Amino acid sequence: MSRIVNVAAAQLGPIQRADSRADVMERLLAHLHNAHAMGCHLVVFPELALTTFFPRWYMEDPAEIDAFYEREMPGPQTQVLFDTARRLGIGFYLGYAEIALDDAGCPHRFNTSILVGADGGIIGRYRKVHLPGHGENEPWRAFQHLEKYYFEPGDAFGVWRGFGGVMGMALCNDRRWSETYRVMGLQGVEMILLGYNTPVHNPPAPEHDDLSMFHNQLVMQAGAYQNGTWVVGVAKAGKEEGCEMIGGSCIIAPSGEVVAACSTKGDELAIARCDLDLCNSYKSTTFNFAKHRRPEAYRMIVERRGAVVPQA
Amino acid sequence: MSRIVNVAAAQLGPIQRADSRADVMERLLAHLHNAHAMGCHLVVFPELALTTFFPRWYMEDPAEIDAFYEREMPGPQTQVLFDTARRLGIGFYLGYAEIALDDAGCPHRFNTSILVGADGGIIGRYRKVHLPGHGENEPWRAFQHLEKYYFEPGDAFGVWRGFGGVMGMALCNDRRWSETYRVMGLQGVEMILLGYNTPVHNPPAPEHDDLSMFHNQLVMQAGAYQNGTWVVGVAKAGKEEGCEMIGGSCIIAPSGEVVAACSTKGDELAIARCDLDLCNSYKSTTFNFAKHRRPEAYRMIVERRGAVVPQA
Repeated sequence: MSRIVNVAAAQLGPIQRADSRADVMERLLAHLHNAHAMGCHLVVFPELALTTFFPRWYMEDPAEIDAFYEREMPGPQTQVLFDTARRLGIGFYLGYAEIALDDAGCPHRFNTSILVGADGGIIGRYRKVHLPGHGENEPWRAFQHLEKYYFEPGDAFGVWRGFGGVMGMALCNDRRWSETYRVMGLQGVEMILLGYNTPVHNPPAPEHDDLSMFHNQLVMQAGAYQNGTWVVGVAKAGKEEGCEMIGGSCIIAPSGEVVAACSTKGDELAIARCDLDLCNSYKSTTFNFAKHRRPEAYRMIVERRGAVVPQA
Repeated sequence: MSRIVNVAAAQLGPIQRADSRADVMERLLAHLHNAHAMGCHLVVFPELALTTFFPRWYMEDPAEIDAFYEREMPGPQTQVLFDTARRLGIGFYLGYAEIALDDAGCPHRFNTSILVGADGGIIGRYRKVHLPGHGENEPWRAFQHLEKYYFEPGDAFGVWRGFGGVMGMALCNDRRWSETYRVMGLQGVEMILLGYNTPVHNPPAPEHDDLSMFHNQLVMQAGAYQNGTWVVGVAKAGKEEGCEMIGGSCIIAPSGEVVAACSTKGDELAIARCDLDLCNSYKSTTFNFAKHRRPEAYRMIVERRGAVVPQA
């Protein structure tokens, strides 16, 4: 099997609240077709790629809230994406809001991504571990970031065999945490797929707004290099319901170098021919974990959640 | 107490094997004086700042080896550094090879750094956790990197109160590992001092040589941002005993931005006025660990050393 994966970072411009699933599906299908025409094997869509980024509003009406979630995947409105992908022989990563029923029939809500193979079958599902923002309405904000209100957190970072290598998934805020990459690195990940929705403006820390694009790239570059893995970061970008979101979708090599990037805030493809074997020289030298890691010195990472500062 | 620390990254050019401790001391003292003249409170010297980077040679004769180590700190040859610092009222970080005797009088060798206060007293000592390179002579290499042969590893990343804040220490290869920064971040670190000796050429992976400077800065910027801490990285640089080493000493803000940097490969100061309070807005928002970390998803980081790749 070839170790070359031709990947498209399929950035989306804004999705407004009034846009239907059918409107969005048209844009996703255009991305699939264009990527296929350029020989891509895998198309990476953003986080929550089927709707507007609804955690920016505080809502209480369950019917209003549930309209943003998918109860089945594929479902009646998304089946066409799976069918088209299978017909084209192209895989995809897709982020969406998921309602899952437990054995008692009780609904659980997650910020989810799936990896779909070239045969249209679901290879893996990931539920976002690092939910950012807050859990209660904070009316002082220009807009909310209520992910802790709308979602339960996932509990693990996994990897899946696919596309000739070891694939990992993450979502948005996960990318800022070095643990995200390391836990997948410890499972031999060779390509991490990662969708995001990142407002330019962070109401609690507006002093960082100018640096959003820099931070976005910095964390993904470091995560790639420090684990010898490809990282494909894909934005939903532009002005969505009055809220400006960063673009900056890019494909990062295991060297940490950006090898392809979007330059707009609209629907745009950034494409790279990714050789998974480029991971090897990092994983076997500087980042030969078995040889150089010192887990006995890392225990604090799992033994405490918050910082404990020594007394003055 | 003021939360401004004026810091000098005191890069050193090469130290040849024939250079005596007295030769080196003269250069360190010049740095102290120049930094003091510019109002600095703290001078950060490189790793193994008293000798040439001797792990590049395989040696067997204990007397030859021991000549590169310090048995006391301060000792007869280093006392002048402590005296001058006290007289000037300036603190410093210094890397050196340490021989410590255990209770049975048995010698243990470490790659060590100390933090010395403006009163000339030792505030803290750190022993390098991540020893890079190899433990046995590998004659095929243009030069050796025998840190695993010459040193025992240290076992912990600590922090110390000093200079009005929470100070941390690390050495060279530690900076490539996200765990280094996180373990100190979990102790509220506000400034990490970090000396290094990094050959441009890495014999097992020459394909990365062109990227040494990029990787050097990338990992320190990411570590700073992801933990909301200052990072001061200081090189021993230039052509030492025929081996070219990177420079790139720099001071990095909690935003991840480089605010001061050296541009030569010789003795050079890069200076910044560092406000420790700039850490606060990162530690209390995006990187509010207590609010956003998910240690239950990180267990693999301490439960496995090497990567375990799922079966195909």
